[in-house]
Amino acid sequence: MNQCNPKVAALPTIRRLPVYLRILKELKSNGDVLVSGTYLSERMGCEAIQVRKDLAVTGTEGRPRLGFDIAKTIQAIEDFLGWNNIQDAFLIGIGSLGSALLGYKTFKQHNLNIVGAFDCDPRKVGTLVHEKRILHITKIKTLASRMHIHIGIMTVPESAAQATADYLINAGIKGIWNFTPVKLEVPKGIVVQNEDLSSGLAVLCRRLQAHKGQENGNGKE
Amino acid sequence: MNQCNPKVAALPTIRRLPVYLRILKELKSNGDVLVSGTYLSERMGCEAIQVRKDLAVTGTEGRPRLGFDIAKTIQAIEDFLGWNNIQDAFLIGIGSLGSALLGYKTFKQHNLNIVGAFDCDPRKVGTLVHEKRILHITKIKTLASRMHIHIGIMTVPESAAQATADYLINAGIKGIWNFTPVKLEVPKGIVVQNEDLSSGLAVLCRRLQAHKGQENGNGKE
Repeated sequence: MNQCNPKVAALPTIRRLPVYLRILKELKSNGDVLVSGTYLSERMGCEAIQVRKDLAVTGTEGRPRLGFDIAKTIQAIEDFLGWNNIQDAFLIGIGSLGSALLGYKTFKQHNLNIVGAFDCDPRKVGTLVHEKRILHITKIKTLASRMHIHIGIMTVPESAAQATADYLINAGIKGIWNFTPVKLEVPKGIVVQNEDLSSGLAVLCRRLQAHKGQENGNGKE
Repeated sequence: MNQCNPKVAALPTIRRLPVYLRILKELKSNGDVLVSGTYLSERMGCEAIQVRKDLAVTGTEGRPRLGFDIAKTIQAIEDFLGWNNIQDAFLIGIGSLGSALLGYKTFKQHNLNIVGAFDCDPRKVGTLVHEKRILHITKIKTLASRMHIHIGIMTVPESAAQATADYLINAGIKGIWNFTPVKLEVPKGIVVQNEDLSSGLAVLCRRLQAHKGQENGNGKE
């Protein structure tokens, strides 16, 4: 997440919810019914108070001495994120990142279903990538309307980013997950989520820097 | 970023720094010398006060009526992140995500240089992916020590995650960028940065949910 959007409260919390979900589902599949805040805080690597705050945004509360009801908490997180229903999405741009996302299994666990994969390269159109048939981007409009698709995942080259976004919005897409570094111009009412892998790299590098500082005893940070 | 690590202050700020860097470098290449906080806040989609706070962590201050010195601010961000020197890294696991990262051009702009790519699949070893020769993972130890590599990027299958991490740490790797969903057990002093593409998806979905809420007039969030 690169933008600072004051309308979305507690972004770090939202970013952590999929991790809670993964842990809770793992516990559920082991037959557990309740989980303590302490256990969750250990698994998440953060304070118990943070766990309570994080889960509170979904309307879930732990009970004293009992902890969190696993099934209810899963339900609450999924409701909060809208992950309780299968969400169909289109993916546009079948380069190496697009192909990787088509094969990214975790999305399915979160009910994200990439139902259409598009490119404009005639060498790609018609081929199968991760068992998905690649379609020409000119098919997007008809299919988005017929299949009621509202999410578009953009992994196109930078030079094609704005044109692709315009095209998607024109086809009725409401939410764009933008993996290009381009700041898209979109009309009001369209949600753009910019994804930049460099963000994670920045955090890793900063932590390594801070570590070196500690080791050298200059205590920076 | 999935973990809440109290030692790293202002994670959202750190995550935004690469975006500032991209904008500042774009301005510099246009021949600009100074940039106003207002301009940066428009480009970032956040308040001017947030821009000042974000850049302050790197030790940079804007000057009244003049704004930020572009070259100095670039330098300060790069110093803060340790991006002023080329950082060599190894990438382990050449599946579709690993291949995508090998071809991810933005890393080069941030001085991250993937100097070695490893897999254990004999069908992959020896082949070229994005002009990188894939080596067998047994070569990691000798090469990491000879080339002084401290960063390992892990895009291996879940089942191989912990063993790969152990192997990397044994080879002298200090920072692991973990693209698997596994919570790695590592000794003190090793930095693990978990990357989970589902985090961005969670934010997009929550924003779409909040939007729908607004449209339906129930004003949730």
